[in-house]
Amino acid sequence: MSSEHQTMALDAMGGDFGPEVVVPAAAAALEELGGNIEFIFFGDENRIKPLLAKHEALQNVSRVRHTDKMIANDEKPSVALRTGRESSMRLAIDAVKEGQADSIVSAGNTGALMATAKMVLKCLPGINRPAIASVFPTKKDDTVMLDLGANLACDAEILVQFALLGSVYARTVRGLGRPSVGILNVGSEDMKGPESVREAASILAHVDFPGEFTGFVEGNDIPMGTVDVVVTDGFTGNIALKVAEGVGDLSGSYFKEALSSTLLSRLGALLAMKALKKVKQRIDPRYYNGGMFLGLNGICVKSHGGMDAYGFSRAIIVAANLVSQGYNKKVATEVEQLMSQESFMTASALADSGMS
Amino acid sequence: MSSEHQTMALDAMGGDFGPEVVVPAAAAALEELGGNIEFIFFGDENRIKPLLAKHEALQNVSRVRHTDKMIANDEKPSVALRTGRESSMRLAIDAVKEGQADSIVSAGNTGALMATAKMVLKCLPGINRPAIASVFPTKKDDTVMLDLGANLACDAEILVQFALLGSVYARTVRGLGRPSVGILNVGSEDMKGPESVREAASILAHVDFPGEFTGFVEGNDIPMGTVDVVVTDGFTGNIALKVAEGVGDLSGSYFKEALSSTLLSRLGALLAMKALKKVKQRIDPRYYNGGMFLGLNGICVKSHGGMDAYGFSRAIIVAANLVSQGYNKKVATEVEQLMSQESFMTASALADSGMS
Repeated sequence: MSSEHQTMALDAMGGDFGPEVVVPAAAAALEELGGNIEFIFFGDENRIKPLLAKHEALQNVSRVRHTDKMIANDEKPSVALRTGRESSMRLAIDAVKEGQADSIVSAGNTGALMATAKMVLKCLPGINRPAIASVFPTKKDDTVMLDLGANLACDAEILVQFALLGSVYARTVRGLGRPSVGILNVGSEDMKGPESVREAASILAHVDFPGEFTGFVEGNDIPMGTVDVVVTDGFTGNIALKVAEGVGDLSGSYFKEALSSTLLSRLGALLAMKALKKVKQRIDPRYYNGGMFLGLNGICVKSHGGMDAYGFSRAIIVAANLVSQGYNKKVATEVEQLMSQESFMTASALADSGMS
Repeated sequence: MSSEHQTMALDAMGGDFGPEVVVPAAAAALEELGGNIEFIFFGDENRIKPLLAKHEALQNVSRVRHTDKMIANDEKPSVALRTGRESSMRLAIDAVKEGQADSIVSAGNTGALMATAKMVLKCLPGINRPAIASVFPTKKDDTVMLDLGANLACDAEILVQFALLGSVYARTVRGLGRPSVGILNVGSEDMKGPESVREAASILAHVDFPGEFTGFVEGNDIPMGTVDVVVTDGFTGNIALKVAEGVGDLSGSYFKEALSSTLLSRLGALLAMKALKKVKQRIDPRYYNGGMFLGLNGICVKSHGGMDAYGFSRAIIVAANLVSQGYNKKVATEVEQLMSQESFMTASALADSGMS
C-alpha cells in the first residue's frame, strides 16, 4: 500500500509566507518520501514557478494551477464559502473531490478550510462530524488527541465516532496493534462528568472497536501519555491544546531566562548546550505540525500558518501517510463493523434513553 | 481591617499526613502572619496535642476539639454528607457556621469538602453556586482562575457571578484597582464559543462590575497572564488546570533529563544550579497551594492532599487573607450593586431570550 503512487493538492497561498514556504517544503517532503508522489500547486504561478525552477526533482513531479484569488487569514468561514470559489484553497479541495488528488494540505485560515472541506468533501459514511486531530509528544510515546476545535459541543455518538477515528489512525499510521483510548474528563470514576461523556464511555465499554477503551483520563494524562488516543469535544480539546502550548512556552522561557541570568549560569548553559538542544528537538512544534481533519471523504491536513518549510513538510508527510496507509478505507470498514454490532445498537439505545 | 483578630478552624486529619503536617504548618503561618490569629484543631487529640507541645507560640493560641472520626480520601461526597457528622472536616465547617471560626482549611477529600461546605454554609445572597478558585504563576503577574471543578456546566448567569467573585478577590486580596477579566473560549471573536459563554460576555460588556471585562481569552492566555481573572466552567477549568500542571511537570523532567544526560551537561547544570533553583521556586506548587471555595457564606480553603507543612501554611495564609480583607462582605456589596443595575437586568433578560 505504502508504495502506491499518490497525488497531493497544495494550497500554495495559505499561511504567513505562501509559496516561499510551500514549494521548498514540498521539495523536502519529496526527498523524505523518496518519490511515489506528485504535487499540484494551487495559486499564483508567477510566484510558484520561479521557486519550482530551483528544485528540479520537485519540478518534475509538479503541476501548477494558476489562480490569483486567495482566502484571507481573517476571512469569516461563511464569507470564504460564498465568495472563495476561485481561491487557491477551494480549488485544491475541489481537486480531491474530483479525484485529481488524494489529499490536500493548506496553511490557510482554519475555519475556512474546515467549512470548505466539510461542504465539498462531505463526511465518510457513518461519520456525522469531522474532527481535528493532532499528535503530541508525551512522557511516553506520542499521543493523538481529537477533537481540537471542529465541533464545540459533541454528543455521545459523536465522541464514539471520534474514538474510532483516533484509534484507526493509531493503528494504521502509528502501527499500534490495539491502541488504548481514553475520554477526557474531570475524574476517572464512572459517575463523573457531563452526560455526553458518561454515555460515550458506556457505549465504548460495551462494543468491539479497533482500540482498547481504558475509561476516563484527566488533563495531566495528556502530557503523561497515559493513553494512545485522547477523545474530547472541540471546545475542551482546543483549550487543552492551547494551555499545553502556552505552558510549554512559559516553562521554556523560565529556563532560558534562568540560564542567561548570571555569568555562571551562562557558562553552565554553554556546557549543556548540546543536551539542551535535544530537549528543544524533542518537543519541536514543527515536527508535530499537521492538524488532520479526520472523518471527511478525502484527506485534508492543516499546517500551522506560521510554519517554516521544515514544519510545512511535516504536514505534507502526515497527509501522505494517511493516504498511503489507506486511512479512509479502514475507517469505512471499522464504522460498518461498529454499527452492525448488536451491543453497539443496544448501548446506543440505552444511552439515548438515559438508562445506561 | 487586616489587623483584626481572627479564628481559623483546621481539619487536622485531612490530607496524606494529618496533624504531622497541619500543626507545623499552623506554626509557620502564625509566624508569617505575626499573630492576630487563633486556631481550633479538629481531630485526634492524642496526635495533635504532642505536636502542639513542640510549638509554644502556636499552643498559646490554639484549642483542640477531639474527634476520632474522619472522612476517607476516597469517600463519596454523598456518603460523607450522610455519615460524616462527627468527622473532623464536618465539625470544622460547623465551627464556621456557628460563628466560632471565621474560616476553615482542610487538605481532605475535595468532593466531600465542597459538598459539606455547600450544605452547611450555603451560598452568599445573590450567588447561586460556589466556585473553586486558585492562583497561578504566569509570564506576567499571577492570575486567578475559576471555576476549577465545583460546577461542570455553568450557564451565563453563573459565569457572570464567577467573574464577580474573581474580580473581588483580585481587588481585595491582590490589591488591584480594576482587575482585567476574561472568559475562557476557543477564540477571541464575539461570535465564537458556546451560548453560555457568549451570553455571559454580552452581560459583562454591558454592566458595571468591580473589574474590567476584556472579552474572551484562549488557553494560552492563562500562562501568558493576559488577564488578572480567568472565568470558565468547572469542567473546562479542571482540565485546563491539570493540563497545565502536567505540561509543567513534563517540561521540568525533559530539562532535568537533558541536564543529567552527559558529563558536560551535568557540569553545566552544576554551574547553573543557583539560577535553576530560582526557576523551581518561581513555579513552586507549594507556594500556590490553596484552592479557594468562593461564594460561600464562610471562608473555606482546600489544601492539596500531598502538601508538606510549608505548602499547607500557604493555604492557611490564603484563608487568613480572605478573612482579613473582608472578602465576603465585599462580594455581598458588589452582588447587590450588580443586581440593582438596570443594564444588568436588561442584559440578563436579553441573554435569557437569546437576543443579546
